[in-house]
Amino acid sequence: MTSTAVIDLLGALAYGELVSYERITADAVIAPTLADQVSLATIAAAEFDHFHKVSVRLQELGADPVTVMQPFVEPINQLHENLAPRDWLEGLLKVYVGDGIVADFYRELSNQMAPDVAELIEEVLGDSGHDAFAIRHIQEAIAADGKVAGRLALWGRRLMGEMISQATLISAARPEIHTLFLDAARDADNMSGLLNRLTVGHARRMDVLKLAS
Amino acid sequence: MTSTAVIDLLGALAYGELVSYERITADAVIAPTLADQVSLATIAAAEFDHFHKVSVRLQELGADPVTVMQPFVEPINQLHENLAPRDWLEGLLKVYVGDGIVADFYRELSNQMAPDVAELIEEVLGDSGHDAFAIRHIQEAIAADGKVAGRLALWGRRLMGEMISQATLISAARPEIHTLFLDAARDADNMSGLLNRLTVGHARRMDVLKLAS
Repeated sequence: MTSTAVIDLLGALAYGELVSYERITADAVIAPTLADQVSLATIAAAEFDHFHKVSVRLQELGADPVTVMQPFVEPINQLHENLAPRDWLEGLLKVYVGDGIVADFYRELSNQMAPDVAELIEEVLGDSGHDAFAIRHIQEAIAADGKVAGRLALWGRRLMGEMISQATLISAARPEIHTLFLDAARDADNMSGLLNRLTVGHARRMDVLKLAS
Repeated sequence: MTSTAVIDLLGALAYGELVSYERITADAVIAPTLADQVSLATIAAAEFDHFHKVSVRLQELGADPVTVMQPFVEPINQLHENLAPRDWLEGLLKVYVGDGIVADFYRELSNQMAPDVAELIEEVLGDSGHDAFAIRHIQEAIAADGKVAGRLALWGRRLMGEMISQATLISAARPEIHTLFLDAARDADNMSGLLNRLTVGHARRMDVLKLAS
């Protein structure tokens, strides 16, 4: 992997973590109880810490974090505008599903990365406690009102579709990342194998919630 | 100072810091540049750390942070609803002015507190870097467009008025805090002396921005 590709990937990751922290904070603000608000704020702070770790690594690599994040601002913001959650549960599902897809996506590339970079990415994409929180609250909401399941299943499918198509657009616009994916796809026989694995990962997360994917 | 009063004050402080972290994050989301977004997110994370420190102290004192914050949720949220900033600059001024008033308010009581509590409060209310950030951006905006000064001066006066009246309501609803203020006022000859000092502190902060208070 070229150093440009590593810096591109870390730039996208850093901005993604920054936005993740902001989105979880927005969910904290509309949490139904103060205890939930505190839990989500604590998780958001952990996401900020992930952002900070990636920024520090970028600086160690001689890159300016703001400069290398910049190309990803517009497409990642666009993705989030297309996928504005209508309520708290949709916000929780979005972070659970979205962070899972992003983690799977980066793991596909990790065998092409230097071990210290792969380790940093694994740490940063590790669960900050959000998964358990989201799963518990979504399960409770479905138990209280079965209609919630259908709506969230639909939302989960939309999240998956939009994220995959946006990831394809983002990687296509960054030649070094695009090459990486072509390499990853070649290793994996073909691109559809890679997409299949992402789909399987998504289905597994939806299964935990007993939601059809 | 009774332990109930200390716990009340720390509960109000903890919730205030939690909301401050959320508000600064909201300002980060609408920041004009990515560099500003990162700066504000970093400041917000420091505010979260303050919240966390107060929570830990509450637990050490045998109190559940959520329980002791709860009485302050509705009045503090109400205050923020009454004072919704219309844009980024108003958001910056609100945090600068608001945190300053809160810090002065707590300092008025610090001579009645155990030294370790006074020290924690001083640390938590210390500047997280927001003041310098807000001052720089507000000064730049005024330099670019003189009309901004009049609007922000008006906004600063509204912030001060609403915060003082809301603080009075909050403290009146918590007998232990109310007693503290009566004591503080007695030490200071009278309540108007205390209000005068808060007003002087506010005027000093507005002066830094060359805004009429």
